[in-house]
Amino acid sequence: MKRSNRLIALTSHFLDHPRQHIQLPHFSDRFNASKSSISEDLDIIDEMFHHEGIGHLERISGASGGVKYIPAYSDEKTTVFINKLCNMLEDPVRILPGGYLYMSDILGDPHMVKQIGRIFASTFANLEIDVVVTVATKGIPLAYAVAACLNVPVVIVRRDPKVTEGSSVSINYVSGSSKKIQTMVLPKRSLPDGSNVCIIDDFMKAGGTITGMRSLLAEFQANVKAIGVLAEADDEEDERVIDDYVSLIKITDVNMKQNQIHVHPGNIKANG
Amino acid sequence: MKRSNRLIALTSHFLDHPRQHIQLPHFSDRFNASKSSISEDLDIIDEMFHHEGIGHLERISGASGGVKYIPAYSDEKTTVFINKLCNMLEDPVRILPGGYLYMSDILGDPHMVKQIGRIFASTFANLEIDVVVTVATKGIPLAYAVAACLNVPVVIVRRDPKVTEGSSVSINYVSGSSKKIQTMVLPKRSLPDGSNVCIIDDFMKAGGTITGMRSLLAEFQANVKAIGVLAEADDEEDERVIDDYVSLIKITDVNMKQNQIHVHPGNIKANG
Repeated sequence: MKRSNRLIALTSHFLDHPRQHIQLPHFSDRFNASKSSISEDLDIIDEMFHHEGIGHLERISGASGGVKYIPAYSDEKTTVFINKLCNMLEDPVRILPGGYLYMSDILGDPHMVKQIGRIFASTFANLEIDVVVTVATKGIPLAYAVAACLNVPVVIVRRDPKVTEGSSVSINYVSGSSKKIQTMVLPKRSLPDGSNVCIIDDFMKAGGTITGMRSLLAEFQANVKAIGVLAEADDEEDERVIDDYVSLIKITDVNMKQNQIHVHPGNIKANG
Repeated sequence: MKRSNRLIALTSHFLDHPRQHIQLPHFSDRFNASKSSISEDLDIIDEMFHHEGIGHLERISGASGGVKYIPAYSDEKTTVFINKLCNMLEDPVRILPGGYLYMSDILGDPHMVKQIGRIFASTFANLEIDVVVTVATKGIPLAYAVAACLNVPVVIVRRDPKVTEGSSVSINYVSGSSKKIQTMVLPKRSLPDGSNVCIIDDFMKAGGTITGMRSLLAEFQANVKAIGVLAEADDEEDERVIDDYVSLIKITDVNMKQNQIHVHPGNIKANG
């Protein structure tokens, strides 16, 4: 197989297997090429991945050495994407009765979701996350997008137990904004004790849901290493109950009378 | 930029933008290369994508011509994957009280989910699907995986309306297995009238949920072009209410006494 063919096959393999450790002999065998040829291929790919702003190859030397593709989204791409998202969300047709903002189309676009996932995964790249946790329903696609880049599983917290998931641990918590008592459930066998966890959700107001998830995760001795929310609402009436989170955008004002919405980049640049 | 560098950049661009029409001048400008060089690059990539069993490049000639990456999963890869899935599911530790099967770990693995999505997307490749529809919660990751390959949005049917989605259309239907009356809701602005729809779900017993989704989708004048379920239960007591679906696997027997599960490939090979 020629170098040009190998480069295509290797590129597609890396993009499909992020953060997976692959030993060089695997590639030598598969492409019937010397280790030094493969090594040169990897140098070219690493250089191009940097150039394209999509991450890099991590080389591990020694007997059990090999290579791993670490996806990353460049700062430039992140800024462009967040600004685009702010513009999209400031469209007044998004205003719903009650001062809510319609975002389901954005969360329903797999390519947008993939990009959001990459940004969070880049920000949390060095935290040794074992699992991404979200709460049903809207955070689910975002959680999978982050988990795919980090090469870890997703665990979904539910509002009610399901027979198809076996015995569960449940907690009650007080919702931040409505002050109502709510329930959260996680199947016992879904999360190994002591996992390093990243919480992902689509929207945060006072942070009650995330506080609830924290209490539930404490039952599994999990370490919450990171919290990422797509959008935070800047609401002065509500005292925010959490502060160690990363947000992509901040919705500061939904004015139904003037038919205006103000959306700004979130705290990801400062914290990320 | 040298050919080897271009091939890496082009490969990563195609894999990240499935079914997106790209005009050749876009690439000529970006890589500062002649149209004929780009055209040769595309031939090499097309050949390798075939060779790797991950799809092909579709060339569109004429003034507004260009190229499109059509992801596809080879028959060989599909068979290997489905057999692996059957083996995984036959592990007796998966048996839950009530004769249910624990599958959340498989649905929680982003790489497994991606492969399932590719298989459905390959099967439904020529049906001109406009949108993938699923019902909360477990089908959501599968729906996104299919939609990503088809380059279409996802719409999620819910059991209860949400204030953050605006006005909704709801229907009541009779569940196939429990014979209970249930509700389904879809926000009005989530689905354009007359869309070509593909329904994706994780599990089907009698098919009541899918029949319910059909009734709801009829309110939007949608054409249900395809139905894909990860697992179907072969249950003689229940008369199945739908028959035009594609399943990856079929669970024929969960025997709690003998601690045995029988899982077979679904009907995808016959229908796909």
